[in-house]
Amino acid sequence: MGEFGLISRLAEVLGPPASDDAIVGIGDDAAVLRFGREHVLVTTDTMVQAVHFLPGSPWEDIGWKALASNVSDIAAMGGEPRFALVTLALPAEQPAADSESVYAGLRACAERYGVSVVGGDVVRAQQVAITIALLGVARSGGGEPLLLRRAAARPGDAIALTGTVGDAVGGLLRMKDGTPPDDALVRAHLHPEAQLAAGAAAVTAGIRCAIDVSDGLLQDVGHICEMSGVGAVVQAGAIPVSEALRKAFGKDSLRLACTGGEDYQLVVVGQAALMEGLIRSAGVPVTVIGEIIDSADPRVRLLDDAGREITFPSRGWDAFRS
Amino acid sequence: MGEFGLISRLAEVLGPPASDDAIVGIGDDAAVLRFGREHVLVTTDTMVQAVHFLPGSPWEDIGWKALASNVSDIAAMGGEPRFALVTLALPAEQPAADSESVYAGLRACAERYGVSVVGGDVVRAQQVAITIALLGVARSGGGEPLLLRRAAARPGDAIALTGTVGDAVGGLLRMKDGTPPDDALVRAHLHPEAQLAAGAAAVTAGIRCAIDVSDGLLQDVGHICEMSGVGAVVQAGAIPVSEALRKAFGKDSLRLACTGGEDYQLVVVGQAALMEGLIRSAGVPVTVIGEIIDSADPRVRLLDDAGREITFPSRGWDAFRS
Repeated sequence: MGEFGLISRLAEVLGPPASDDAIVGIGDDAAVLRFGREHVLVTTDTMVQAVHFLPGSPWEDIGWKALASNVSDIAAMGGEPRFALVTLALPAEQPAADSESVYAGLRACAERYGVSVVGGDVVRAQQVAITIALLGVARSGGGEPLLLRRAAARPGDAIALTGTVGDAVGGLLRMKDGTPPDDALVRAHLHPEAQLAAGAAAVTAGIRCAIDVSDGLLQDVGHICEMSGVGAVVQAGAIPVSEALRKAFGKDSLRLACTGGEDYQLVVVGQAALMEGLIRSAGVPVTVIGEIIDSADPRVRLLDDAGREITFPSRGWDAFRS
Repeated sequence: MGEFGLISRLAEVLGPPASDDAIVGIGDDAAVLRFGREHVLVTTDTMVQAVHFLPGSPWEDIGWKALASNVSDIAAMGGEPRFALVTLALPAEQPAADSESVYAGLRACAERYGVSVVGGDVVRAQQVAITIALLGVARSGGGEPLLLRRAAARPGDAIALTGTVGDAVGGLLRMKDGTPPDDALVRAHLHPEAQLAAGAAAVTAGIRCAIDVSDGLLQDVGHICEMSGVGAVVQAGAIPVSEALRKAFGKDSLRLACTGGEDYQLVVVGQAALMEGLIRSAGVPVTVIGEIIDSADPRVRLLDDAGREITFPSRGWDAFRS
């Protein structure tokens, strides 16, 4: 049934949160929890060896990326990260130096984004895996949290993207071919940055809808459409692709950009006038790539310059299909 | 170097938390984090198949226990649990019905202890594993958090214990021998209760030091000694052991009670007068089993009725030794 079918069945088994203080529960980039007057954001992400990273990946990069992918979830809510719990699963025979390298990478990422690691667990398992729970705070205005929600897209809104997409999966493919870790695309795969400043700028610009590109651009825009009850059209020619990706993958770079995942760029959705403000203030390139449309079909339509639809065999990552 | 050596090396790599709002970081049952005027507790625990539970354990019990062990950490801080994130790792071929049973058990435990599940992750892995991050709140008095800390034991304090210990490991051993899941000891292993009410009663009684029995009684009292810079003497004859354990394991029941782990009872440490108050108010049996002593050696001395020291080959669970 695939990852998303399973998640939705499990959410049904759990039922809705009992507490009114769960402002946002399952189904967004992070949960939003009210504690007194505070709005706490919390998210968790896991990376499993041979599933989420190749054996042979540098341990420091694994630590960095495990935290950066969680910071990206907080960025996609427009919040600020604060505290992390880290669980490291590893075989009994794994050298302690490997764990220390994972934590050195974690520390570098924590310092980069202002996160304090305050706890965790170390457990024995067959495969190395790292699970992080990250707590943050929502920005607020007049006592209310100011959030970027998946469910806040409206017909007519512009769809924009920070940076370029496809580099991470391009790097993964090159790494499989033996390209060393200092290659620019391989770096994008191993050592992504979270778009924390862009998320903050989006909230400040009055935008209220975003997601981070973790599964793949089309699939992630699709999550916004499902949660908002809208459709979307994306212009293939507008999708920003790096020179490095184009040079390495030629015509295939569009497919990688649309379906690759793990770029941790932000998809930001809002009125065109607000988006112009964000483009001026974001501090990183922000490119309009499409539009939200009034549609009962949450499928994202990808169009070429002549208005013809482009389709790919897969729209992105699915833990139980790929 | 064992689990605790590894954790302490990794904590060194990380360095102290950057934020002053991390009131309690690595090394207690839960971290304590200040958000505005609120004091948020957060903890995480993982259960891995064939490491923390036997293949063939009922899936519902696995879900229950994964959450109950985290609730126990909040109980051991004297707090109230609120919100959980759940990460389920499982092989691609695992039947969806198994996952649903895990979540049904989780839901039952969440309802029992007033927890809302607000997010998580489902990932592919070779082994089934469940990781929970649990957020709660500290009780407070006059704006300050009222906590049960591992570091708060003082010489002369009484050491007390809720309920009985050893049942869980007794149940694990019986399960390995083919005893069915409805056996009382096997239930204690598969379906533990968290001592939330006793933790609350301890805080209310003015007690400020506790830990839950997750690794093994002697080892867990030892954690208190290390964090508090004290020693401890425990009277073997005072340790409460259930009739079921004594009947099944005879003379070996003392060793199981002292080193077994996963009972999720609370060890509570405080002045004798406060302890008398707790014994009256806890709502569960609370038994004084020993005393904190002024000692540079954090080792816990277990004495028989004649004052002779009793030692066992192991003092409790170590993820990287057992």
